[in-house]
Amino acid sequence: MNDLHRPGDTAKDLREGEVAVDLPADFDAGVYFIGRIHTPWKTRSECPKNARASDAICTVELEERWEAALKDVAGCTHLLLLYWMHEARRDLVLQKPRHYEAQRGTFSIRSPVRPNPIAASVAALIGIDGRKLSIRGIDCIDGTPLVDIKPYFSSVDSVPNAVVNWHASGTQRGE
Amino acid sequence: MNDLHRPGDTAKDLREGEVAVDLPADFDAGVYFIGRIHTPWKTRSECPKNARASDAICTVELEERWEAALKDVAGCTHLLLLYWMHEARRDLVLQKPRHYEAQRGTFSIRSPVRPNPIAASVAALIGIDGRKLSIRGIDCIDGTPLVDIKPYFSSVDSVPNAVVNWHASGTQRGE
Repeated sequence: MNDLHRPGDTAKDLREGEVAVDLPADFDAGVYFIGRIHTPWKTRSECPKNARASDAICTVELEERWEAALKDVAGCTHLLLLYWMHEARRDLVLQKPRHYEAQRGTFSIRSPVRPNPIAASVAALIGIDGRKLSIRGIDCIDGTPLVDIKPYFSSVDSVPNAVVNWHASGTQRGE
Repeated sequence: MNDLHRPGDTAKDLREGEVAVDLPADFDAGVYFIGRIHTPWKTRSECPKNARASDAICTVELEERWEAALKDVAGCTHLLLLYWMHEARRDLVLQKPRHYEAQRGTFSIRSPVRPNPIAASVAALIGIDGRKLSIRGIDCIDGTPLVDIKPYFSSVDSVPNAVVNWHASGTQRGE
């Protein structure tokens, strides 16, 4: 496997409010990139604040190898996409993202910076043409590697009354 | 990294309705297991049909290295957990899970069998004691490796009116 530890993944280069840990010496499992997500945004700073903050139609381009696995996907109004946030460092346990004033635990926010930089985002499916999916509701950088496509089942995935208390307090902007 | 290709990941051992592809020669990224999920179910056949089919309280035990990242998590009513379904083969594009009568594309179902066997499940958070989280709403095997903990934001994660058409037709049992 390629060595995907990034040069920046050290305890150095910490900003105020950030705390890093030593990463484990080895990975425990391997991920295949199964396609790419194409969006209008070329850098992290250009990306919308969250996935509902833009109506841009984006494109998921699946690798040819996996095309047959799209059978029946056209019948889904929404998909849960997993993708790899390949520009993020992985060693921060406490951080202060640009939108927030407070220091937060990594597992309490949706920042790309986390031990495994895998995003999970709900996208509306607009249409499928071969192995290209048109979607709405994604906020990642153009070229982001795709990790999985799942059907979104409201019966298990939708919890309208869920609350994130630190966010509900109203003093911070949303992720 | 450990070689986590499983001996069973070949085009052999296919059941009726299953179609496999050759897996890529190399992984593209590496995953750290950050903890384990403890549940009452020791085998896949014991697991509930889906995450809402049991009220069992399960435990997420985070590794000590990551404990500080739990700051502010206690204020979440629900979490999105990512975990690694380590017993699943990865090469099927078409499959016929035990609950279904029809052959389905891998990306149209929530089967653990997929190129990257990462599950995404919404769990209700009951409480946190140090680096142990009590949760409800998880259907995986005891000892399943944890990959990520995310706060569940109803504003972006909840889509109550989402539909999976093949499922809504009523001829198949749910996943």
